[in-house]
Amino acid sequence: MIAILKHGTTPAQTQHLIDWLKNMNLDVHISEGQEVTVLGLIGDTSRVDMELLGSLDIVESVKRVSEPFKQVNRKFHPLDTVVQVSDAKIGGGHFAMIAGPCSVESEEQIIEVAAAVKAAGANLLRGGAFKPRTSPYAFQGMKGAGIELLIKAKAATGLPIVTEIMNISTLDLFADVDVIQVGARNMQNFDLLKELGKTQKPILLKRGLANTLQELLMSAEYIMSEGNENVMLCERGIRTFETYTRNTLDLSAISVLQELSHLPVIVDPSHATGKAKLVPPMAYAAAAAGADGIMVEVHNNPACALCDGAQSLTPVQFAELNKKVQQIREVLK
Amino acid sequence: MIAILKHGTTPAQTQHLIDWLKNMNLDVHISEGQEVTVLGLIGDTSRVDMELLGSLDIVESVKRVSEPFKQVNRKFHPLDTVVQVSDAKIGGGHFAMIAGPCSVESEEQIIEVAAAVKAAGANLLRGGAFKPRTSPYAFQGMKGAGIELLIKAKAATGLPIVTEIMNISTLDLFADVDVIQVGARNMQNFDLLKELGKTQKPILLKRGLANTLQELLMSAEYIMSEGNENVMLCERGIRTFETYTRNTLDLSAISVLQELSHLPVIVDPSHATGKAKLVPPMAYAAAAAGADGIMVEVHNNPACALCDGAQSLTPVQFAELNKKVQQIREVLK
Amino acid sequence: MIAILKHGTTPAQTQHLIDWLKNMNLDVHISEGQEVTVLGLIGDTSRVDMELLGSLDIVESVKRVSEPFKQVNRKFHPLDTVVQVSDAKIGGGHFAMIAGPCSVESEEQIIEVAAAVKAAGANLLRGGAFKPRTSPYAFQGMKGAGIELLIKAKAATGLPIVTEIMNISTLDLFADVDVIQVGARNMQNFDLLKELGKTQKPILLKRGLANTLQELLMSAEYIMSEGNENVMLCERGIRTFETYTRNTLDLSAISVLQELSHLPVIVDPSHATGKAKLVPPMAYAAAAAGADGIMVEVHNNPACALCDGAQSLTPVQFAELNKKVQQIREVLK
Amino acid sequence: MIAILKHGTTPAQTQHLIDWLKNMNLDVHISEGQEVTVLGLIGDTSRVDMELLGSLDIVESVKRVSEPFKQVNRKFHPLDTVVQVSDAKIGGGHFAMIAGPCSVESEEQIIEVAAAVKAAGANLLRGGAFKPRTSPYAFQGMKGAGIELLIKAKAATGLPIVTEIMNISTLDLFADVDVIQVGARNMQNFDLLKELGKTQKPILLKRGLANTLQELLMSAEYIMSEGNENVMLCERGIRTFETYTRNTLDLSAISVLQELSHLPVIVDPSHATGKAKLVPPMAYAAAAAGADGIMVEVHNNPACALCDGAQSLTPVQFAELNKKVQQIREVLK
Repeated sequence: MIAILKHGTTPAQTQHLIDWLKNMNLDVHISEGQEVTVLGLIGDTSRVDMELLGSLDIVESVKRVSEPFKQVNRKFHPLDTVVQVSDAKIGGGHFAMIAGPCSVESEEQIIEVAAAVKAAGANLLRGGAFKPRTSPYAFQGMKGAGIELLIKAKAATGLPIVTEIMNISTLDLFADVDVIQVGARNMQNFDLLKELGKTQKPILLKRGLANTLQELLMSAEYIMSEGNENVMLCERGIRTFETYTRNTLDLSAISVLQELSHLPVIVDPSHATGKAKLVPPMAYAAAAAGADGIMVEVHNNPACALCDGAQSLTPVQFAELNKKVQQIREVLK
Repeated sequence: MIAILKHGTTPAQTQHLIDWLKNMNLDVHISEGQEVTVLGLIGDTSRVDMELLGSLDIVESVKRVSEPFKQVNRKFHPLDTVVQVSDAKIGGGHFAMIAGPCSVESEEQIIEVAAAVKAAGANLLRGGAFKPRTSPYAFQGMKGAGIELLIKAKAATGLPIVTEIMNISTLDLFADVDVIQVGARNMQNFDLLKELGKTQKPILLKRGLANTLQELLMSAEYIMSEGNENVMLCERGIRTFETYTRNTLDLSAISVLQELSHLPVIVDPSHATGKAKLVPPMAYAAAAAGADGIMVEVHNNPACALCDGAQSLTPVQFAELNKKVQQIREVLK
Repeated sequence: MIAILKHGTTPAQTQHLIDWLKNMNLDVHISEGQEVTVLGLIGDTSRVDMELLGSLDIVESVKRVSEPFKQVNRKFHPLDTVVQVSDAKIGGGHFAMIAGPCSVESEEQIIEVAAAVKAAGANLLRGGAFKPRTSPYAFQGMKGAGIELLIKAKAATGLPIVTEIMNISTLDLFADVDVIQVGARNMQNFDLLKELGKTQKPILLKRGLANTLQELLMSAEYIMSEGNENVMLCERGIRTFETYTRNTLDLSAISVLQELSHLPVIVDPSHATGKAKLVPPMAYAAAAAGADGIMVEVHNNPACALCDGAQSLTPVQFAELNKKVQQIREVLK
Repeated sequence: MIAILKHGTTPAQTQHLIDWLKNMNLDVHISEGQEVTVLGLIGDTSRVDMELLGSLDIVESVKRVSEPFKQVNRKFHPLDTVVQVSDAKIGGGHFAMIAGPCSVESEEQIIEVAAAVKAAGANLLRGGAFKPRTSPYAFQGMKGAGIELLIKAKAATGLPIVTEIMNISTLDLFADVDVIQVGARNMQNFDLLKELGKTQKPILLKRGLANTLQELLMSAEYIMSEGNENVMLCERGIRTFETYTRNTLDLSAISVLQELSHLPVIVDPSHATGKAKLVPPMAYAAAAAGADGIMVEVHNNPACALCDGAQSLTPVQFAELNKKVQQIREVLK
C-alpha cells in the first residue's frame, strides 16, 4: 500500500503518521520526491482502513499496490481451478451447461425437464426450491419438498443438481445437492458465505446487482478463507439505467475475472435479460467471450411456469442453443 | 392489474388468455377499444407474474393499477406511523437524532461517546457490534461483547440503542437492544426479514445500494406481513457512476417514501458520503427535505476509529450539526 | 396511447379531460371498467406530453401503446436496411469490419495502418481527425489535415473511411468521407443530427454513455426524419458503477435494436473496455450476438499512440481477431 | 503524476520508460522502495495519456497528484467567484433565485409569469426558447421569437434572463440575453463550450446526466481556458436505476464542487425530479446544503404548459418556496 502525502507536509507531521502506522505493525518505507512524499506500507495491509488513511489532513491519496484478495488471486494460484461436481468437471477447459426450470413445481415437471435438457446436452440440472422474491405474497418455492424432487430427477437422469440456499439454517437439506447456489441478493450475506466456506460443497456464487467485480472476488474470498476451494463465479447482469432488459449482462466480466482469479466463470443469460428471445444470442456471446459455463432456464411449458416463465426456453430451443454454443467453443480452441 | 392486448389478437386467442387468467382465480373485465383491447384483472393479483404475462405473444404490456405493497401503503393507513422506542417517539412530527460510533471498540469509548452525543442533543445511540465488511480480513466487530457494552452505555446515559443484526441466529443477543438495524446488504435477505417480522422490536431497514424505493417498501412489507408494525425506513445512498462520494445520497427518497407509505424515514449521511466534511451539509439537506430522523457517526477520536473513521464527526461538530438541524426543522413547521 | 384514470374520478372530471385531449386533435375512446376507466387516445400522440398527462390529479398512469419512433421502426419497415458505403454493404447479412487508429497522426502512420488492416481483412478504415477530449489541454486531433490524410489512405488502399464530426460548421471537410461518425457525447446534439439528416452520407450514430436504447432510436429518428436513410447504430458501452472496465459493453443491445429497428448495429469493443486485452473476447461476443459489424482500434505502435493507445491492437492481433470473428459468423449462419 | 512500477521490473525496462517520458518533455524523479518503484513525473502532465501509461506491461498504476483542471480550481483561486448578471450578483454569499416557465409560449404568458415570479422574490427569469427534445416530433421551442419575448419580459420587469443555447450558429440571437445556459446534453459539446469561452457572457453550465463532477469541472475549464471567467455550475440530477423520479438529484455535488472550485453552484430541482410536488422539498434541501442559487420552473397554468408542465409550480407555490428558502439560508449564516 502506498500513501502519497500532500505538498507542504512538515517533517513532524510525517513522523507522527509513520509512528501511527508502525503502531499497526506495519513497516514504512519513505520516498521523498521533489513534488511529493510517498510512504510505502509493508506488512499485512489488509486490515488498514484505506478511507480513514486517505481522509487524514496530510494525505493526498492512498493506493493499494496488491489486490485485497489472496486465495482467489491468480497471482498466487496460476493454474485454473477445476471444480469436480459428481462426474462433471468445470473450469480449465471443461464446460458446464446447466439447464432447468426457474422453480421446481412437481415431480413430473422436474423429471420431464431434466430428461429433456440431458438429451439436449446439459451436464447439470438447475431448479429453484427456495425462491427469493421481491414480494412476500409471491410464490416462495417448494422449499425442502422441492429439493427432494430435484434429488429424484438426479436419480432418474444422473445429472448433478444445482439449487439455491437462502438461509444457513436449511443447510442439512442440501446434503445431496451437488452445487449450492448463492443468489445475487445474498452475495454479501457474509455470515452465510462463512458457513458455506466450512463445507466442501461446490458453491456457485452469483454477482450482486450492484456489486463490482472486486467485491465479487472478496465474497469468494470469504468462502475460500474458511477452507472451501470449490467456488465458481457467476455473472448474471448488473443494474443500470436501461429498462428494456431486466438487467445489463456484463460479459467483459468473464475475461476480467479469469485474469484476476483462477476460479471458473459461469454466465446466466436468462436472469440477466428476463426475455427468452434474448437468451440464445447472449449465451452465444458468453461462450465466445470465454465463459466456463452457461446456466439457462428451460421449461417444458414456459407459459405456465410459476415464476420467471418469460425468460424460459423450451427444450427444443435449448437443444439448438447448446449445439451452437459447442460450435463456438470449437472456433475458440 | 391491466393487460393491454396487441392489435390483431383474435377472439379465440383472447378467450384462451381469459380462461387461463380465470384459472388463477381472477375475474376479468374486457374493454374493447378501436386500437386496443384492455383486460382488467380483478382479485388477488399479487401472485400474478407480470413478466410472464407481458411475455405472451398477444400481450402488448401489463400494468399494475395498485401498488404491490399493502401494509406499508399510506392509502390503507393514512396516518403517519409513530414508532415508540423506549421514551423516544419517531415519526409523525417526532424526530430521531441517532448518533454514535461506527463500531463499538471499548467500554470507555462507547460510554464517553454516548455521554457526549446525549449532551449534544442525540436521543438515540448507535454503535456497530456485528460489522458487515467487504473483506474477510477486516475487523468484523466486537459481536456479542459489543452489544453488552452498548447496554452499559444505555444504562449510563439512558439513551436507547440501535445496532445491526447480520444473522438471525444471533437474535437472542438483541433482547435488550431497542432498535434492530438491517443493513443495506441484507435489505433483500428475505428470511431475515420474515424472522424480524415475528418480533415486536422496532426495525431500522436500510435501503440497498442498488434497490429501488419500491423494493425497499416491499422489504418493509415482508416485516409487516409477519406482524411487526414498528418499521423505519433508512436512505443511506445508492450506487452510481460518481466516484467522488462513496455513494450518492438520494434525498428525493424522503418525500417519495412519505407519500407512498406511513412509515418514518431516517437519513444516514455518514455512510452515504463517506467523508466527514460532507456530513453536516447533507444532514441539513435531509432535515430540510422533511426527514423524520438523521443517523450520524460520531467518534471521540475519529483518526483512531477501527473502521469508517473517515466519515465520523467529533462530538463538538455533532453539537453544531444538531443545533442547525433543529433550526431548519423550525423553519419548516 | 392509453390513460388510466384513478378510482373515484367523477364523470365531470373525466369529461373535462376528454375535452382537453380533443382540443389537441385527438380522438378519445372510453372503456369503463369496474376498477378503472381507461381512455384510448387515437391520432398523432407523438406530441402529447406523457409526463404532464400522468401528473394530472385524476390520472393513475399513461402508457404508450405504439413506439414513439416511426422511420427507424421495424414495424413499418420489416426488411433490414443495407447501407451502401462505396463498394461495401453493411446490414442484412453484410458485415462491416472497421479498423484503424484512434487518431490520425501522420501520413506514414495512417497509410501503414490502413494497408495492414486491409491485409488483415478490414473493409473500412477508421481514424479520428476531430477528437472530443475531456480536457481542453489534451490533443484535439489533426482536424482538417487529418481528414486529408485519411483520404490519402483511402486512395492508397481503396478502403472507405469513417471519421467523427463534432461541429456541423466543418461539414464541408467531410465531402470525401464515406461514413460520418456521431460520437457518444453528441448523440443528443439534436441540431447536429438534423443537419446530418439533410445529407445522404451514411451516418454511424454512437449510443451515449447514459442513453437508453429508445433514446438512441429517437436520435436516429432525428436523422431519418430529415430524409437521410443511411443510418447505422453503434453500441460502445454505457456508464455504470463498475470501474474495472472504462464502460460496460451492453451486448444485449444488439438483439434489442435489431428487433425494434431495421438499421444495422455495429459494436465498438475498444472504447467500451479501454483495454486491449479485452477487445478480442468482446469482439467475438459481439459477433456471436449477431452484430452487423465491429469497429476496432488498431495501431502499428500502440505504445506511442497520441491517444487511447491502451485499447489498441497491433495489426497481427487484429488479423487473428478477424479470422475468429468470421468463423463465429459461419457458425451462426 | 505518479507512476507505480510493477514488482520485478528490470532496470533496463525502467530506463526505457524514463527515456520515453523525458521525450515528452517531462522531468522524472525516481523513488525506489522495497516493494515498488515510484516515478514522479514533473512538468506539464496535462497532455499525458494516463490510460496508455497505465496499460504498459511494467506499470502497476498511474495516479494524478494534482487535479487536471486549473482555472476552475480553488487551489489557484481561493476566493469565491462572484458572477455579475445585470444588477444581480451570484456566488460568494449572493443567492440566485431563478424562476420561470420551461418554454416561452406567448407574450402574455411570459410577461405574466415574469411579473409573478418577480413579485414572489425571483431575481432572474428563466424560459426556454430553443428546446432539446428527445423526439423530433415534439415541440422544439419558439426559437428566435421566444428570445424576443424574453427580452420583452425583461423590459417589463427588469429581471435579467436565462435561456439555453443549442447551437453556436445562433449566438447572435443571444446578444441581449443575460445568462446563456448550456444544457445537460451539451455539457461535452466541446466546440460549443470553446466558442462560449470567447464571449464574456455569464454561462450556466448544467451537469450531464452521466457525467462525473470532475468532468463537469473539465467542461467549465473548456470555457474558462478560452478567457470567459463568468461560469456557473448547475446540478440537475443524474441518471440512475431508480425510476420513481426522472433523475436522482445529487445534492452532495454542491459541497464537493464548492470545495474543488471557486465557481457558484446552482441547483435545478424541477428537471431532476420531474414532479412538482418534489420541487419544494428538494429546493429546501439544496438551500440547506449550501447552494448559491436555485432554478425552478414556474408556470401560470401548469396543466396547459407545452412541455414539462408536470414539474412546474404555480406562482403561489413558488412564493411559499422562496420564503422558506430564504429562512433556511438565514439559519446557515
